[in-house]
Amino acid sequence: MITIPFNKPYLTGNEVKYIENAVSRGKISGNGYYTKICQDLFRKKFGFKKCLLSTSCTDALEMAAILADIKDGDEVIMPSYTFVSTANAFILRGARIVFVDSRSDHPGMDESQIEALINHRTKAIVPVHYAGVACDMDLIMKLADKYNLFVIEDAAQAIDSYYTGSDGIKRPLGSIGHLAAFSFHETKNIISGEGGMLAINDERFIDRAEIIWEKGTNRSAFFRGEVDKYGWVDLGSSFLPSEIIAAFLWAQLEKLEEIQSKRLEIWEFYLKELQDWSISKGVNLATVPNFATNNAHMFYMVCKDVKQRKCLIELLKKNGILGVFHYLSLHKSEFYREKHDGREIPLADHYSNCLIRLPLFYELSEKELKKITETLKSF
Amino acid sequence: MITIPFNKPYLTGNEVKYIENAVSRGKISGNGYYTKICQDLFRKKFGFKKCLLSTSCTDALEMAAILADIKDGDEVIMPSYTFVSTANAFILRGARIVFVDSRSDHPGMDESQIEALINHRTKAIVPVHYAGVACDMDLIMKLADKYNLFVIEDAAQAIDSYYTGSDGIKRPLGSIGHLAAFSFHETKNIISGEGGMLAINDERFIDRAEIIWEKGTNRSAFFRGEVDKYGWVDLGSSFLPSEIIAAFLWAQLEKLEEIQSKRLEIWEFYLKELQDWSISKGVNLATVPNFATNNAHMFYMVCKDVKQRKCLIELLKKNGILGVFHYLSLHKSEFYREKHDGREIPLADHYSNCLIRLPLFYELSEKELKKITETLKSF
Repeated sequence: MITIPFNKPYLTGNEVKYIENAVSRGKISGNGYYTKICQDLFRKKFGFKKCLLSTSCTDALEMAAILADIKDGDEVIMPSYTFVSTANAFILRGARIVFVDSRSDHPGMDESQIEALINHRTKAIVPVHYAGVACDMDLIMKLADKYNLFVIEDAAQAIDSYYTGSDGIKRPLGSIGHLAAFSFHETKNIISGEGGMLAINDERFIDRAEIIWEKGTNRSAFFRGEVDKYGWVDLGSSFLPSEIIAAFLWAQLEKLEEIQSKRLEIWEFYLKELQDWSISKGVNLATVPNFATNNAHMFYMVCKDVKQRKCLIELLKKNGILGVFHYLSLHKSEFYREKHDGREIPLADHYSNCLIRLPLFYELSEKELKKITETLKSF
Repeated sequence: MITIPFNKPYLTGNEVKYIENAVSRGKISGNGYYTKICQDLFRKKFGFKKCLLSTSCTDALEMAAILADIKDGDEVIMPSYTFVSTANAFILRGARIVFVDSRSDHPGMDESQIEALINHRTKAIVPVHYAGVACDMDLIMKLADKYNLFVIEDAAQAIDSYYTGSDGIKRPLGSIGHLAAFSFHETKNIISGEGGMLAINDERFIDRAEIIWEKGTNRSAFFRGEVDKYGWVDLGSSFLPSEIIAAFLWAQLEKLEEIQSKRLEIWEFYLKELQDWSISKGVNLATVPNFATNNAHMFYMVCKDVKQRKCLIELLKKNGILGVFHYLSLHKSEFYREKHDGREIPLADHYSNCLIRLPLFYELSEKELKKITETLKSF
């Protein structure tokens, strides 16, 4: 019997009120009032050139793959230790995925291994900011410049997290690559059930992104009076979420700072309480490189082996606590192992086997937190 | 100043209550309680083998295109007089679209013209049940059998509408082809803002559909205990809507009969009031073939020419009424005209130029209805 779940969606209190308001405005399909105010806030707060809400982060990645004009045989470089959508979005356009291993100090991809994987078919690099912790974007953007590649940040977990490059400027994740995708799935810091967003930083993509978002039509330009009738001008899909979803998200956005600071408190409690214990057990706790900030999306630990992880998950479970593992290396998946080029990707496998995530949600009480750390310490 | 809009989303009253309930269940991502009860009700009421809610009808069509294994160079036959998503979903998989003209008595596609367009590259036929009125499915299914093609019903407008074939059996639209896609966009009879559903009638597709729906993973089978861990096994996307959307839809579904009968009343009022007038003006009113039922999704009129339509739309507008035209022939669109094979498709063009839709929504009052018909009669 689980008494402390791994995740619990947090409601700020205004969600239903804003949904009612969206409904009373007589428009609950996409691209209405709440969509616009959410997009505006994201744009202004994080300095993206343009934002488009989507029905999921998966869909935002699919928009990015269309915008990057990914075609049969193009290669896209990304970590093996990531969610399936990072890869699927590009495979749907015909791409071959070239997987990079993770860093030894962090499950994010090892930037130093990317260049050796670039060839004339390479079209894009997709850094995944695992746990909301930045990849070393200076290195990645330099490679993109050198080889003329697109960088599409998978910022699913990375809202309100930052990267400081060699110029000393602190930039929001998702504002650095040409394009970026965010998730508002119920497991994220701010949520809308299912939901996501495409952030566009390279202005060349803005007009086309809006068209693709509106099912391949120039409907948005029409409603701004820029064209006198609208029609089918490009590929596209229905990437817009309902106003019901956008209204929900708006209530979350209003409380972004409060949510972030509460999550950070929890994260730091874990770190402080578990530090000595983890050293004694050969467990590595989550780390944040100097160039990155911590948005406290996730608190994870890397066990010394798969057996230790199994025992820890069982111990937690016996005490009513749900700790969970995370991704399984994509290069070893049933779907892709035959398509993979056969390289060993050992650290991705290591994190697949040994990483464990602890409960982390707004309403996690101090008492529950203590129960979790005390349970672990009894191991 | 418009006082009678073209559409107004109707709320049955329980939408917000069910959304609150979904939230209180602690799960607002997809495939939860409300998703399941919606899917079960659709399946039982309409005899589909399996239903999967989606974020839009567009997305349901995209799932169908993946399931039908549409590949580069495959041809897909569909009407030119349809929404862009009917075509985009297949183009995203590499298909070439072969457009069929509309019927002279109805904007739906002329079934008698399909066979001449079939060749060895043809993979699927996509009948669009325009205005919720059935295509002649006997003819289409016979062709599919003869040439081994998939039939994917675009039933976006066709919920709770029926077709009676030569065997005398009345079958729900969406239950006849191998696959079918429905829309719950705010302009439809029952709504969820943005939303849709894939109906699966050919059992061979059931397992794979669920995988594609869950981002290419066998997560659903895992939660049923059929596999001991879940992973990446296929292509896929995030086609699941949030439970917030499903909860909204459930409130609508509870009132399906009430909504349908009210819409039918409005539809019949138009028909009765406008019959004599339309004959005198050379305007053709919406018709329903003997093999089809009418779900009163739409009341449309076909003017004798584009000039007459323009005058009628202006007359309505001057009286505060929003009447609108509908699709523009896809074979003449900026996106597809160069890709089209050059055939003339005159009736699709005729409906593009001459069709006008009148306001039709649950809360349209008798007074408003009378104002609309009286305004038209003053023409």
